[in-house]
Amino acid sequence: MANIFPSTRIRRTHFSDGVEKAGVKGYTVYNHMLLPTNFGNLQDECIHLKNYVQIWDVAVERQVSVTGKDTQKLLNLISPRDLSKMSDDQCFYIPVIDRNGGMLNDPVLIKINKDKYWFSLADSDFLQYLLGISDALNLDVKIEEPDISPLAIQGPKSDELMSRVFGKDVTSIKFFRYKKLYYKGYEMIVSRSGFSKQGGFEIYVEGSEYAMNLWNTFLEYGSDLNIKVGCPNLIETIESGLLSYGNDITRENTPFEAGLGKFVNSTRDYIGKKNLLSRPINKMIKPISIHGKIPISDRAWKIFDKDKEIGLISRATYSMSYKTNVAIGMISKSHWDPGTKIEVLTHEGMRKAVVEKNFWN
Amino acid sequence: MANIFPSTRIRRTHFSDGVEKAGVKGYTVYNHMLLPTNFGNLQDECIHLKNYVQIWDVAVERQVSVTGKDTQKLLNLISPRDLSKMSDDQCFYIPVIDRNGGMLNDPVLIKINKDKYWFSLADSDFLQYLLGISDALNLDVKIEEPDISPLAIQGPKSDELMSRVFGKDVTSIKFFRYKKLYYKGYEMIVSRSGFSKQGGFEIYVEGSEYAMNLWNTFLEYGSDLNIKVGCPNLIETIESGLLSYGNDITRENTPFEAGLGKFVNSTRDYIGKKNLLSRPINKMIKPISIHGKIPISDRAWKIFDKDKEIGLISRATYSMSYKTNVAIGMISKSHWDPGTKIEVLTHEGMRKAVVEKNFWN
Repeated sequence: MANIFPSTRIRRTHFSDGVEKAGVKGYTVYNHMLLPTNFGNLQDECIHLKNYVQIWDVAVERQVSVTGKDTQKLLNLISPRDLSKMSDDQCFYIPVIDRNGGMLNDPVLIKINKDKYWFSLADSDFLQYLLGISDALNLDVKIEEPDISPLAIQGPKSDELMSRVFGKDVTSIKFFRYKKLYYKGYEMIVSRSGFSKQGGFEIYVEGSEYAMNLWNTFLEYGSDLNIKVGCPNLIETIESGLLSYGNDITRENTPFEAGLGKFVNSTRDYIGKKNLLSRPINKMIKPISIHGKIPISDRAWKIFDKDKEIGLISRATYSMSYKTNVAIGMISKSHWDPGTKIEVLTHEGMRKAVVEKNFWN
Repeated sequence: MANIFPSTRIRRTHFSDGVEKAGVKGYTVYNHMLLPTNFGNLQDECIHLKNYVQIWDVAVERQVSVTGKDTQKLLNLISPRDLSKMSDDQCFYIPVIDRNGGMLNDPVLIKINKDKYWFSLADSDFLQYLLGISDALNLDVKIEEPDISPLAIQGPKSDELMSRVFGKDVTSIKFFRYKKLYYKGYEMIVSRSGFSKQGGFEIYVEGSEYAMNLWNTFLEYGSDLNIKVGCPNLIETIESGLLSYGNDITRENTPFEAGLGKFVNSTRDYIGKKNLLSRPINKMIKPISIHGKIPISDRAWKIFDKDKEIGLISRATYSMSYKTNVAIGMISKSHWDPGTKIEVLTHEGMRKAVVEKNFWN
């Protein structure tokens, strides 16, 4: 694969200097920004993540802030998830859809207070959809992308490391809740969340002033915990069934097809509700094991039952922990039962595969 | 710079095999898709482009098609440019804006017929803005991203090469007009356009069936014209003042600040009109020459007059043709007159610079 060509359009983050110093070996581009993908060995990095603690530059999770008098009105129009019982310290994973029920993003919505929310975005300019709605209806809202850079601390030693930097109080934060904590007198939102199933936190760093300072403090305070600079790990996210918008789900798919039906429970008359609830569910995201040696999944692979095309694999990689190629695929109802034997056409040939009951982690 | 990590989310194009075979050395990511940026030597590629003919994979110029009864209504709502006199074979460069006049993209709008248009997008999900507007107002339109892959033939030998492949008729196409021409019995839209000032065409290839076949035909028919596989060239685009959304202009800027005021002439009551026309124009895109040796412009550089910050450089590179570092910057009214001496703070130190009267090509 070729180098990524530097330009202003592909934005550096306030942590890029730290990532480069740690010897980043691969990037992807996510929300027009650099996201590290590996530091040389995905397998080792996955095992390390499961045993120690890592610091991740996830500034690509761009925050879109919505404020103003019509904030609730806008949220009710665009959220298939019931937000009425959302607490002031809560983060909600919400699938967002267009009029036909097709997914536009799968952000985490963070309630700062009743008139101010942040969408922590996956990889699409969902800000433009929000602008379109509010411009068309002339809503009294302000929609912006503030200079906020999430930094993630992930892995089983996260609580210990976070306590050292933010104090014991941090360990009382519940899953998908946040607290406002202080670093050198500077208030930061800290949530128990992150793109792994190994436990951890995300810190929403505003501006650049404290970014590298905090980064370096973590590295210093974590040195005896075997901290390493890492990033969301392809293997671990597939093992954990953590979906990636743009990879595993697109506007072609509804939340139900993405296996996110439990987040569709709003009683409001949100945009797309009727179409979403009436669309039949003929395919769904499933965990799939692929046998044999496979290439890098840089394109979708078709799934077959003999000559019949029955789905697509979006991501796949070898897992040392589970001694198989773990994969995420969208597969037809006819073949989605656990144990169903299928075939996957990689760009290096056909491979035997099987539908699994559960994701691995 | 590190490698780009392959994934389904960063989409390959129907020409990626051809680009790889030609030895691509760098990519960027544009509309979630791979865009080649160089094949080893930007200077040589720039000189070649100015003298011969190149074939470019510009499939990243994603087409968003708008069809349906309310198509005109939607276009009138979102276009600051007067579309009333647009012919059925015409392509219009239009700045598109939000309610505050901030630019969301700068697509080329292609009129297929009165009920069907394509937006040929720069790098942002403007599709989501169109969806937002039409979902909010429940417009009778269908908004899609069809499987269309633009391929560009650029350089002074373009007319000769295109004639060989599409017949003499192709040379009668006027600038920013198109014709429906045939390749092996398959109808394709061919426009006289492209992201260089060296002349040329863009072919909108539908589906994958003829993509690599057409690519290889061009290479074969162009071999005695010294054809090379190329890509939009950083040097040539700066010399030509061809703006890049995300680099040179963002939602922070109005079309006037981007120097695109002549495309703001709609008499309709489009979204953002009032704010756009009342916003003062205190800064503008200008050509700037920077003296001395400069690093790669992978981040914005601040422009100074002594201690006073007066603008930002978005792109800069050395031009062999003009023996200077050519640059594009957004600069305050106080300093935008041609000949004004300024200083640019690169990430490798301060450089002297001067505001130019015109772009170079």
